Amino acid sequence: MTLRIGVVGTGMMGQDHVRRLATSVPNAEVVAVSDVNLEQAKRVGEGVGARVFSDGHDLIGDDQVQAVLIASPGFTHEEFTLACLAADKPVLCEKPLAPTIDACLRVLEAETAKPRRQVQVGFMRRYDDGFRAMKEALEAGQVGRPLLLHCRHRNAATPPGFTSDLMITDSVVHDIDVTRWLLGQEVVAANVLKPRPSSKAPEGLQDPQLVLLETAEGALVDVESFVNCQYGYDIRYELVGETGTVSLGELAGVQVRQQERYQGRIPTDWRERFGAAYQRELQEWVTGVLQGQVSGPSAWDGYATTAVAEAAVESLNEDRRTTVELVERPALYA
Amino acid sequence: MTLRIGVVGTGMMGQDHVRRLATSVPNAEVVAVSDVNLEQAKRVGEGVGARVFSDGHDLIGDDQVQAVLIASPGFTHEEFTLACLAADKPVLCEKPLAPTIDACLRVLEAETAKPRRQVQVGFMRRYDDGFRAMKEALEAGQVGRPLLLHCRHRNAATPPGFTSDLMITDSVVHDIDVTRWLLGQEVVAANVLKPRPSSKAPEGLQDPQLVLLETAEGALVDVESFVNCQYGYDIRYELVGETGTVSLGELAGVQVRQQERYQGRIPTDWRERFGAAYQRELQEWVTGVLQGQVSGPSAWDGYATTAVAEAAVESLNEDRRTTVELVERPALYA
Amino acid sequence: MTLRIGVVGTGMMGQDHVRRLATSVPNAEVVAVSDVNLEQAKRVGEGVGARVFSDGHDLIGDDQVQAVLIASPGFTHEEFTLACLAADKPVLCEKPLAPTIDACLRVLEAETAKPRRQVQVGFMRRYDDGFRAMKEALEAGQVGRPLLLHCRHRNAATPPGFTSDLMITDSVVHDIDVTRWLLGQEVVAANVLKPRPSSKAPEGLQDPQLVLLETAEGALVDVESFVNCQYGYDIRYELVGETGTVSLGELAGVQVRQQERYQGRIPTDWRERFGAAYQRELQEWVTGVLQGQVSGPSAWDGYATTAVAEAAVESLNEDRRTTVELVERPALYA
Amino acid sequence: MTLRIGVVGTGMMGQDHVRRLATSVPNAEVVAVSDVNLEQAKRVGEGVGARVFSDGHDLIGDDQVQAVLIASPGFTHEEFTLACLAADKPVLCEKPLAPTIDACLRVLEAETAKPRRQVQVGFMRRYDDGFRAMKEALEAGQVGRPLLLHCRHRNAATPPGFTSDLMITDSVVHDIDVTRWLLGQEVVAANVLKPRPSSKAPEGLQDPQLVLLETAEGALVDVESFVNCQYGYDIRYELVGETGTVSLGELAGVQVRQQERYQGRIPTDWRERFGAAYQRELQEWVTGVLQGQVSGPSAWDGYATTAVAEAAVESLNEDRRTTVELVERPALYA
Repeated sequence: MTLRIGVVGTGMMGQDHVRRLATSVPNAEVVAVSDVNLEQAKRVGEGVGARVFSDGHDLIGDDQVQAVLIASPGFTHEEFTLACLAADKPVLCEKPLAPTIDACLRVLEAETAKPRRQVQVGFMRRYDDGFRAMKEALEAGQVGRPLLLHCRHRNAATPPGFTSDLMITDSVVHDIDVTRWLLGQEVVAANVLKPRPSSKAPEGLQDPQLVLLETAEGALVDVESFVNCQYGYDIRYELVGETGTVSLGELAGVQVRQQERYQGRIPTDWRERFGAAYQRELQEWVTGVLQGQVSGPSAWDGYATTAVAEAAVESLNEDRRTTVELVERPALYA
Repeated sequence: MTLRIGVVGTGMMGQDHVRRLATSVPNAEVVAVSDVNLEQAKRVGEGVGARVFSDGHDLIGDDQVQAVLIASPGFTHEEFTLACLAADKPVLCEKPLAPTIDACLRVLEAETAKPRRQVQVGFMRRYDDGFRAMKEALEAGQVGRPLLLHCRHRNAATPPGFTSDLMITDSVVHDIDVTRWLLGQEVVAANVLKPRPSSKAPEGLQDPQLVLLETAEGALVDVESFVNCQYGYDIRYELVGETGTVSLGELAGVQVRQQERYQGRIPTDWRERFGAAYQRELQEWVTGVLQGQVSGPSAWDGYATTAVAEAAVESLNEDRRTTVELVERPALYA
Repeated sequence: MTLRIGVVGTGMMGQDHVRRLATSVPNAEVVAVSDVNLEQAKRVGEGVGARVFSDGHDLIGDDQVQAVLIASPGFTHEEFTLACLAADKPVLCEKPLAPTIDACLRVLEAETAKPRRQVQVGFMRRYDDGFRAMKEALEAGQVGRPLLLHCRHRNAATPPGFTSDLMITDSVVHDIDVTRWLLGQEVVAANVLKPRPSSKAPEGLQDPQLVLLETAEGALVDVESFVNCQYGYDIRYELVGETGTVSLGELAGVQVRQQERYQGRIPTDWRERFGAAYQRELQEWVTGVLQGQVSGPSAWDGYATTAVAEAAVESLNEDRRTTVELVERPALYA
Repeated sequence: MTLRIGVVGTGMMGQDHVRRLATSVPNAEVVAVSDVNLEQAKRVGEGVGARVFSDGHDLIGDDQVQAVLIASPGFTHEEFTLACLAADKPVLCEKPLAPTIDACLRVLEAETAKPRRQVQVGFMRRYDDGFRAMKEALEAGQVGRPLLLHCRHRNAATPPGFTSDLMITDSVVHDIDVTRWLLGQEVVAANVLKPRPSSKAPEGLQDPQLVLLETAEGALVDVESFVNCQYGYDIRYELVGETGTVSLGELAGVQVRQQERYQGRIPTDWRERFGAAYQRELQEWVTGVLQGQVSGPSAWDGYATTAVAEAAVESLNEDRRTTVELVERPALYA
C-alpha cells in the first residue's frame, strides 16, 4: 500500500522533503507538487514524475492526492492547512503551524470539529535519537525532577533578509517545542536578553540572543540563539535535574590527530545533523496515515509554540519579561 | 519502478533484511522467502505477503523474483550464488561469499564468464558513515601514508556452538575486508596470537585472539577479536599514518552525570551499531540493480577475504605465521 | 631563602593551606597559626612546629612572621588585612577580601597609601591550567571578540547553615572574578533568576540560581549555581566569541567500560579539582613576596568582585536587575 | 629537615631534575652537580648555588651530599650506583638501572648485601594520576582479570643519533615497567614486529615498531612505539579484562570550535605530559629518604625491565620471538 502525497511549496525545504519521500521513505509516492514559482515546481515535479500546480489549493483538491505536506512560506500555512481539513486530507505542516496565535486558533477550531486529528506539525527533533534518549533518561528517573534546561542553537550564517524576530519564530521555535515535549510542561513566560551583537552578523540583527523561558512547574530554560556563529551548525542541550544531568551533543565521528592537535568535524548544515530525524518523521507519518492515525506533534503543539514565540518576540522588542496565556486545551489533544 | 526480491534464509540475519527491505528501503519488495525451516519461512513470508519456499533453488528459479538476497548459512552460499549466476539474476550474498577458497574461486569463474558483475558480498561496514569518513581522511592526505591499523572487535557474548575458527571466519572477516578496502592493499600474511582465554568465554574457546595481518605494502594490522567481552558491542579503529592518525569509535550519544560518575550507553547489538549501514547497503544495492549495475563489494573481495581468513585459521591452529597467495585478479574486478 | 608565614584561621581552608605550605611549597615555612578555637590551632600548629595564637592580631604582630595568609571567616578579613598593612607585611587573603563594599574600600584606602601592593586575594582559579588555556585561546584571537560566557558551578551538597546569599558571596564570587579576569572587563549589572528549588536542597535555600551578569562592553554571562546537585563537583565553562567558542571542563581521566556503559569519575571535592591551582597560587605568592613584589589578584579585584556580588544578592532578594557602580580605579591597580 | 642532594649529569634530564628539586620540591636542596662537560655543570650549578664537579665519583664522595640523583648517560649508571651503595648513600637512578643484564645483576648483588633498599629507579609513570587510576580500577575488580594491554607510545620526533635499539631501551622500557607494575606479573617473552618504516623517520630507523610482550600468567601486551609520529607526544593505554576495559588517555583540556572543526592541543613534550609525575616522584623520594626508607621502583624492577628490553632488542635484530629468564628474586625485593 502506497500513500500518494502532494507537496505544497518547492523551495529548499520542499525539495528536501520531495527527495526524501521519493528515495528513502517506503510506501510513499509524491504524486503532485505546487509552487507559486511554477518553473521551480516543474523542475522538482519532473524529477519524480509528479503533477505540477501553481496553486496549492488545486493540489489539495486533486483526487490523486491522499495526503499533503506543506512546505510553503509560514504565512500560507493557515490557509493550506484549513483547506486540507476541509478536504478531509491528512496534512503534515512544516513549522510554524501558523505565524500568529489567532491563525493557530482557527486551525484548532477547524480540527476540533473533526472526530480525530488530521494535522501534524513538523517538529522533527522529536524524532532524533539523541533527543529521544534524553527524554528516556529523564522519564527513567535517571536525573530526578527537571530544574534547568540549557540549550545551544547555533548556525554558521543566516540567509539574506533574516531578522531578529525570525531568530525566534524560525529557530528558537524548535527549542520551545523541545522544552514543552521534553519536560511535559507548558511555557508560561519568556524573556529575551541581548548581548552586544556580533560584528559578523548583518547590520541590525540582534545576534546572539539569550532566550529565557519559564515552565508551568517552575523549570527555567535558557536558549542561546546564535545564527551567525561562523564555525558550524551546533546543537547542544543539558537538562539539569535534582539528582543529575543528561546532556546531548558531545562530538563523535572520526577524529584526526595531526600537527599537535586532535580535531573533528562540526557539520555546517542542519540537514546533515537532522537528516535521520527528518527521515523518521516522514516514515512514521506515512505509516500512521496509512493506518488511519496521526500521532506526531499536533496542532495544539503548533499553537502553544507559536504563543510562546509570540511572547518572546514581544519581549525582544519591548525589553521586558512577557507571559504566555493559552486557551483551554481541547479534549482532542488530551 | 520496484525491485522484486527473493530472500534465501529466514534466520536472524534474513529476518532482519526482510524487515528492512519491507519497511525502510524504497523501491524494494520482498516477493519470496525460503528456508529449510518451512515454518519459520512461512511466519516471515506472511508478514510481508511473500511467497514461501523450502528450497532456495525454487525461489531463485521463480519468475517473480528479479534479484536474490542470500542470508542462509555460509556453507550454502556457493550453490545459491552459482544458481543465481546461472539464472542471470543479481545477487547480494551475505558474508562469507563462501567458506573455502576453492568455493570462492568457482564463483569467480562463473561470474567472470559474464560480461559484467552480478554478485555483491555483504560487507556492510563500507556503508557506515564512520568507516567512510576514515577512508576520506586517509585519501585526503590528512594522516599521510598508512603504517599501522589497530582494530577492536568486541561482542558481549557468543551464541551456543561458537568456535575459535568462527571468531575469524564470522567476525574478523569484517576487519579483513575493512583493511583491504580502507588501505587499498591486499593482505599477504596472517599471524594469530593467543592470550589466556577469558574464564567468561565457553570452555575451549580461544577468546580473545590478537590477529596480526600484513599488507602488500608493509602496513601492519592488529585486530583484537574478543567475542565474550561481557560489556557490550564495541568496534573501534585507529589508523596510524606517517603524519597523523585517524580514529573511529569515540563514544557519543547522550551522557548522564549522577552519583559521582558520568556515563553513557554502549550498544549491545551489532544491528544497532550498523543499522544505518545495512540500510544504506540495501538501498544502494536496490538502486544499482534497478539501474543495471552492481558496484558494492565484489566476489573478488569475497574471495580475497576468505583467503586471508583461511590463512588466519591455519595460523590459529598451527601457531605460526602463514602467508596468503591470491590468484591473478580477473579484469572484471579491475 | 625561606618565607616565614603566619596563617590566621585553622578551619578547613586554613588547614589545607598549612598542609600545602608545609609539604608542597618550597621556600615556605609556617611559623605561626592562630584561631579563636585555640585547641584547633594547637593541633594544626603542632603538626608543623608553628607557634600558636588565639588572636590573629598577635600573630600578625609577631616578629617571626614575615607574611600572613588569612583563612579566617570572611567578616574578619577586613580587620586582619588592615592590620597586616599597618604592620607592613604582605598578605594573601582568602576570598572575599571583605564581605561589604565599604569594608573593601577601607582596605583599598589603606593600601593605596603605600608605594606598592601588599595585598593579594585568593582567587585561585586564575592559577588553573584550564582557565589559563581559555584565556590564552581568547587572547590569541582563536574565537574572536567575546559575546557570551556560560558557566556551570555545581557542588554535591552544602554544609549546614548555608544560605541563598552565600551561594553568591561564597560560590559565584569565583565566577565573577573569572568573568572580570577572562574578559578583561568590569561587570556592570546583575540579575538573579530563580527556578523551582531542588527538593534535595535544605528547606528555604534557593538552589539552583541562574545568575546573569552584564559586562562593560556588552558581553552577557550566565552562571548556573547549583550547590546541592548531588552528583559531584562540576565546573564547566564555555566562552562564545564572534568566530568560535572555547570550552573548559570536558571530562578526562581513566574511563571504564563495563555492563553496557562507559563511565568515568566526577570529583566530589573542590580541593581535588583545584589542588594544583592552589599549589601554584601559593608557590607564585611565596616566590613573589621573597622577590619583593605581589602580583596576583589585587585588593581592587577583591573590591570589584564584592561590589558585583552585593548587587547580585540585592537582585536575588528584590527580584530585579541591579546595576554595579564602582569607584574610580586607583593608579596602584592600573 | 632538608635533604642535601647531589645530581650526577647535567644534560636535559639532569637540568630538569635540578630545576624541579630547587623550585618545586620542599625539603630538598641541590648542593652539588657534576658533569664531564664542566662548563655545563658550572652553568647549572651556579643557578642553584651548588658545588660543581667534573667527576661524579667526587660528587658521590662529597660529605655535603646526603643522597644522589643519577641523570648521566645510561652506560655510566652502574658505576655511579655502585659507588653510592659503597658510600652508603640513597640513590635515585634514572632509567635504565643499567643497559645490560649483567650490569644490573652486579647492582642487585651489591644492594642485597645491605640490610635494606637504597636504590630507586626513575620509572616516573607509576607516579602519574592516570596510571594510578588504571591500577586502582583493576585492583578494585572493575574489569576482571587482565587479558590484554594495548599501549601507544608516540613521540613527535627523535634527536639525532637515535637508533632502533634505543626505541626499546629508551622508550619502550617505560611500557615494560608499566606492564609489570600494572599487571603485577613478570614478562616472559617478547616479539618485535616491523611494519614499513615511516619515510618521516631518519634513514635506517625501524620506526614504528609493534612490540609484543607475554606475561607469566598469559596476558598479551602490544606496544606501538612510534617515535617520529610528527603530530605530538601521545601516550594511551587500554587494559582489557574479562568483564570490561579501563583506558587512559582520552584528551581533555580546553576545546576550541572554529571553522567547522572542534579541536584541542596534544602536548609535544613528555615533560609536559609527565611533569606532575616527575614532581611527585621526587617529592616522595625525598620524603622517604628523610624518613629512612626507599620504596619506589626498585633495582629489581630495573633489572627485570632491562632483561625484557634486552630480549626485545634481540627479537628486533633477529626477527624471532625471544624469551626472558630472570634470576630468582632476592628476598630484599619481596
